[in-house]
Amino acid sequence: MDSKELILKRSEENKQLYIPNLSADPVIFGFDQNELKVLLVKMNYRKMWILPGGYIKKDEDLNDAVVRILKERAGVNAVSYLEEFAVFGKKNRSEGYFEDFDETLFQKQRFITIGYYALFNPSKIDLATDEFSESCEWIYLSQLPEIEMAMDHKEIVEKALLALREKISIKPIGFNLLPEKFTLSELQKLYEAILGKELNRGNFYRKIKNLGILRKLDEQRRGGAHKAPDLYSFDEENYNKALENGLTSW
Amino acid sequence: MDSKELILKRSEENKQLYIPNLSADPVIFGFDQNELKVLLVKMNYRKMWILPGGYIKKDEDLNDAVVRILKERAGVNAVSYLEEFAVFGKKNRSEGYFEDFDETLFQKQRFITIGYYALFNPSKIDLATDEFSESCEWIYLSQLPEIEMAMDHKEIVEKALLALREKISIKPIGFNLLPEKFTLSELQKLYEAILGKELNRGNFYRKIKNLGILRKLDEQRRGGAHKAPDLYSFDEENYNKALENGLTSW
Repeated sequence: MDSKELILKRSEENKQLYIPNLSADPVIFGFDQNELKVLLVKMNYRKMWILPGGYIKKDEDLNDAVVRILKERAGVNAVSYLEEFAVFGKKNRSEGYFEDFDETLFQKQRFITIGYYALFNPSKIDLATDEFSESCEWIYLSQLPEIEMAMDHKEIVEKALLALREKISIKPIGFNLLPEKFTLSELQKLYEAILGKELNRGNFYRKIKNLGILRKLDEQRRGGAHKAPDLYSFDEENYNKALENGLTSW
Repeated sequence: MDSKELILKRSEENKQLYIPNLSADPVIFGFDQNELKVLLVKMNYRKMWILPGGYIKKDEDLNDAVVRILKERAGVNAVSYLEEFAVFGKKNRSEGYFEDFDETLFQKQRFITIGYYALFNPSKIDLATDEFSESCEWIYLSQLPEIEMAMDHKEIVEKALLALREKISIKPIGFNLLPEKFTLSELQKLYEAILGKELNRGNFYRKIKNLGILRKLDEQRRGGAHKAPDLYSFDEENYNKALENGLTSW
């Protein structure tokens, strides 16, 4: 069966199974080589990149749907933190994509899509490819301008990044991307990757220490050419408190 | 036509006009007597309070739908700032409400609802009641425990308040609720109402001045029993910059 036949076949099943007009699109960020990556799927049909999104079953809670979709489309298990950040509802947002099909195709109807984001450690995920896809890969954000993405999915990734930047100014998210013990320089590189700009080292160290969520260990990172830097871990109690209550307070 | 007949009549029209399974619910906050209020509608059917929500037309952008819904259900014009904050998608979230109707009723199907919030100055809105409603009123948050709300709408209001609290820690929102010239004490009362707790006066004054968005005027508020306090307004340029870029930076 070629990719068009498969899309047609699934269309009929989809009509029975899923809520019409509504989809969910997870934007999964990873951190690698001091840079952010995003998890994308390359469809067999038209060879364009898309987010690993999908539909919501008629009898399924929305939150369960997003977890299932991510597993089905990318093989991602053990989702820990998925946050809804925006709904994309322009009436013509997916027009043109299923150009080889008529209007009766389930996948071609108007979809309002709910955007989620999450931060994963790429090394801890075994990716898998579904029946519609040629591949499922981590793509560096710096590569995005060079690839062709379907519909408004590039805009969804950009909005997710803005939401992530806003979030990291109030909650200590993203730290699950670091190893258990890390240096302040490694933590700074994570913040720089998310914020998309270089930070002043002195300012960053002072601010991050003031949050009260770090515990300085009696250990150093050995092996570099320079003076061995101190290792830190998170003060679990204060870290969880900050996750719950936020970093800024009035 | 009684309220049940009207609901049945509209059900048939709704099937033609609206996307199934999807609704939008705006939570409109106002500030009055140093307290937050929320805009609610009392339905003729079952006399329960609900948010002034509605459905999305098949050929309508989602953002346009929310503005239209608010106007149709509550008479609210000139919406300036509506922010999507969460999607409510439990499969049984509205079960039981339309108990007098069978499953063919449009309004009785499963709805995944998109939650929005906005901050309005109550004195600037003329409320209007639609054909389904007995009244449309501002209800103080402190009164919420005493009233009966349909479905999960009380939970939606609570989540909106949490989103608002998170937002005010990073962006100077809500200031459109104040008169053009205000005292620091009036500004503090707005923050206290939104955050739901008393703030230390010295800390608050210091922090709010440090944001750089206030302009001290050469005028005082006269007429009180105490020393006339200084009046402030917003430094428009810095205020807009803070709205765009946020209050905290790394």
